[in-house]
Amino acid sequence: MNPETAKQIEGKIILGIDPGTTIMGYGVISVKGQKMELLVHGVLHLAKLPDQALKLEKIYSRVTELCKTWLPDEMAIEAPFFGKNVQSMLKLGRAQGVAIAAAIAHAIPVMEYEPRKIKQSVTGNGNASKEQVSAMIVTLLKMDAAPELLDASDALAAAICHHFQNGNVGKKSKSWSSFVKDNAGRVVGGG
Amino acid sequence: MNPETAKQIEGKIILGIDPGTTIMGYGVISVKGQKMELLVHGVLHLAKLPDQALKLEKIYSRVTELCKTWLPDEMAIEAPFFGKNVQSMLKLGRAQGVAIAAAIAHAIPVMEYEPRKIKQSVTGNGNASKEQVSAMIVTLLKMDAAPELLDASDALAAAICHHFQNGNVGKKSKSWSSFVKDNAGRVVGGG
Repeated sequence: MNPETAKQIEGKIILGIDPGTTIMGYGVISVKGQKMELLVHGVLHLAKLPDQALKLEKIYSRVTELCKTWLPDEMAIEAPFFGKNVQSMLKLGRAQGVAIAAAIAHAIPVMEYEPRKIKQSVTGNGNASKEQVSAMIVTLLKMDAAPELLDASDALAAAICHHFQNGNVGKKSKSWSSFVKDNAGRVVGGG
Repeated sequence: MNPETAKQIEGKIILGIDPGTTIMGYGVISVKGQKMELLVHGVLHLAKLPDQALKLEKIYSRVTELCKTWLPDEMAIEAPFFGKNVQSMLKLGRAQGVAIAAAIAHAIPVMEYEPRKIKQSVTGNGNASKEQVSAMIVTLLKMDAAPELLDASDALAAAICHHFQNGNVGKKSKSWSSFVKDNAGRVVGGG
């Protein structure tokens, strides 16, 4: 799929993000009715960058680029609510924050889903392994092979989960605010 | 000070941010030699917003607006490294992340300082109370009265701390990357 054709893609475009501080996965799908199509997927390697500032800049730049190239209607992020310690959660929060900001800058509503919820939604089992999730992605998106890295599978899974959850969303919301209002409690965590 | 005059301000402009999930403080100062001048300060009230998404959007919008209006050369944020629990640190990380992203989008280098470091730098005492910090801000910036809310004082203190730390920075860095290189270990936390 050529990015130049993004504007001609029929249906809704969903950007899935699996933000992390060592690797960020991303995937873009289009959805029309129940038909899903893979547009692009990939990962950002962040571990080698010497400084957190550069990591955040890279995440922001790539998500911005994805928003400009693919014009997503909505963004779904995989967002664990619990972590090992406060330090790692602060770093993860920052990585999520810059990705969310890139979407906000393009007026794209952001929905977050817990890993367990995504696994449940995509495979029917909240305790599925990452490999099981990846295998299901291949089937659902009719891919020739699984993404090389599981982070990209996870990002695509977030996008697919969002689509599956979306059945109860009525008309397409026009603004971030109205979307939030229509989807109280489902948009980036309460409070 | 009128925002329209920002481009005529002599010296370096520093934006200070105290990001939080209930109140965000901000302050802008200009620095020429050892002379500091207050340009603007204020707070964003976030507690009343019903959803975290709206809070993040508001932080991003305001920091973007401050970057566009005041054309800061650098941004300093107050950044606690420890917190009560992983949940609050994730939320704080997101708030910091969107503020940092707004600066990245304007190619403004971001430096972070621990609260203790800021207190030490501004008052000479790392254990100073917020009120003591505020009183010192009034003196240093020749203000008629202290900011109504301590969050604004904290943001100004972050900017002043950055100025005081800056003595060992040589020429003005031209890009985020070169700034990071020139200031290894001082820019938004390592790794």
